[in-house]
Amino acid sequence: MGLCAFYRLGELPLVSGETLLETCIGYQTFGQLNANHDNAVVIFSYYSGTHASYLPLIGSGKTLDPARWFIVLVNKLGNGVSTSPSNSVLQPGAAFPRVTLLDNLRAQERLLFEHLGIRRIALAYGWSMGAMQAWHLAVARPHQVQSLLAVCGSARCWPNNQVFLDGVRAALCCDAQFADGHYHTPPLRGLAAFGRVYAGWAYSAAFFREARWRDLGFDSLEALLVDWEQDHQALDANDLLSALHSWYHADVGLLTGGDWRAALAQIAARCIVMPCDNDRYFTLEEAALEVAELRQGELRPLISPYGHCAGAPARFATASAQIDSAMQALLYP
Amino acid sequence: MGLCAFYRLGELPLVSGETLLETCIGYQTFGQLNANHDNAVVIFSYYSGTHASYLPLIGSGKTLDPARWFIVLVNKLGNGVSTSPSNSVLQPGAAFPRVTLLDNLRAQERLLFEHLGIRRIALAYGWSMGAMQAWHLAVARPHQVQSLLAVCGSARCWPNNQVFLDGVRAALCCDAQFADGHYHTPPLRGLAAFGRVYAGWAYSAAFFREARWRDLGFDSLEALLVDWEQDHQALDANDLLSALHSWYHADVGLLTGGDWRAALAQIAARCIVMPCDNDRYFTLEEAALEVAELRQGELRPLISPYGHCAGAPARFATASAQIDSAMQALLYP
Repeated sequence: MGLCAFYRLGELPLVSGETLLETCIGYQTFGQLNANHDNAVVIFSYYSGTHASYLPLIGSGKTLDPARWFIVLVNKLGNGVSTSPSNSVLQPGAAFPRVTLLDNLRAQERLLFEHLGIRRIALAYGWSMGAMQAWHLAVARPHQVQSLLAVCGSARCWPNNQVFLDGVRAALCCDAQFADGHYHTPPLRGLAAFGRVYAGWAYSAAFFREARWRDLGFDSLEALLVDWEQDHQALDANDLLSALHSWYHADVGLLTGGDWRAALAQIAARCIVMPCDNDRYFTLEEAALEVAELRQGELRPLISPYGHCAGAPARFATASAQIDSAMQALLYP
Repeated sequence: MGLCAFYRLGELPLVSGETLLETCIGYQTFGQLNANHDNAVVIFSYYSGTHASYLPLIGSGKTLDPARWFIVLVNKLGNGVSTSPSNSVLQPGAAFPRVTLLDNLRAQERLLFEHLGIRRIALAYGWSMGAMQAWHLAVARPHQVQSLLAVCGSARCWPNNQVFLDGVRAALCCDAQFADGHYHTPPLRGLAAFGRVYAGWAYSAAFFREARWRDLGFDSLEALLVDWEQDHQALDANDLLSALHSWYHADVGLLTGGDWRAALAQIAARCIVMPCDNDRYFTLEEAALEVAELRQGELRPLISPYGHCAGAPARFATASAQIDSAMQALLYP
């Protein structure tokens, strides 16, 4: 998990009208904020991931060198580190309110600009749902976000992506033991079904055809699918569905009266948008539609059979090099 | 359902080593077999479809004119018309043995060449799983199948397609009420989850983005998904999983010692292979790999946001015209 600090905000009013109690954001920093308070790199957690997922990118001599950058890894609400159904004392499990990425944004703004005292962010970056949060910050703070690197993650959850999410949610909720979130023991069948359905969306046809699961250390396709099942059985079902709700309803347009194009036009940051050509839910075509609305947007697709997974930090050498190269272009222009 | 005749084969030895008892194939014919016994057009049922699905294609003045062609619509085992878990008296429900497309082929050969007395088939055609059966017949009877029209359906179930099937199966089996097939009342939650997960694979990102569900008469995306749920709740879970087993294990290579390339090279028929560019499980790229092995194979993709559904008989005007044109090219060369 890595060492983690906690910023306690207390009550957070939510877009839904509900209130999140005892709100707490788990985060980790590397390096020091400089005198101008403008050397921050902010990195957002992805679905079922924590701040720890990005640790391999950070270190002396790397692009994200703590000697040069003040690096902040932020955990989103519902990921099991920040306030979540699985760790909330006052609103546990099914009592957890409906949190969106706008609610995360408000909490993250307080952490970054008030608590940590950042004035300008040199780079906002994330993979997948992490990218979605970075998009939101770039829209909300056009004068404080200098660059954006969005890897396999869109500015809004497009309907195709929503249908995918509807499917994995249905597979999980189909387990009667889930009991609308009021389970006492984990709904293991539902979590396994969630993982197995999800796996089909995570890679490309070529990945499966060419048995590229061998690259990941598996000796059969079934072994890969069982691994996806077990990974999800280790997670909390309400946490998963809370973050899924945030993902499903993500839309930078909510910051500009419902107009996502206007929201993107508002971004001042230099942006590199990096979908994978084989991503089945954060599609290349929809990334291109978003880039078309940007003032300074560049589409740099990852070409990879790993599909959505191609963009995972430090997972695949070729894609990782391309992500690192984009990061360098943005941080050392 | 349409009027249906039944051909009773009795005991059918299966590839699995089991025996299907009281085997019965439901079929419907139009027109007359000619003196040479070579004017047959054979059309195979698709997943969760029956012979009735193709009725709109048949009629006086149409390409499939019964005045010219002896048209045979065949129901596959497990579809609820031919012998299936839902209608078998001796092997009902979970007691139904594991049937593959090779088993279907053996039963279909007896129906076509023995019972109906066909000598040569002018056209073998099907959509989706229907195409898979047509591929099998073209491989097994190279001198008796003159042409093949395979719409959105491959000669083998590629791993990407298997992973998709694994997902929908997991969603259904997640319902404890399914009870490994020993249910007394239908597992409605599981069937709904099956339908909802399936829907995400059936169309393209553009279909969802452009709200093309309006073309289908729905007033919201949710209404479309609920329709998929209800469609599947009306089907029998064991029937669905029996046909899914056949689909998952489909492979013309089983006719030639495991070598699918050798099997395709054996086909003498003139073939038109018609995947949809946006089909997510019967992919364009895998159709192209199969066509490359054919002696007389032509790849004619459907370009459509309807994805796999584009190839459904008589459902979408543009694709239907393209399918009809291919059928004409094969029947009236």
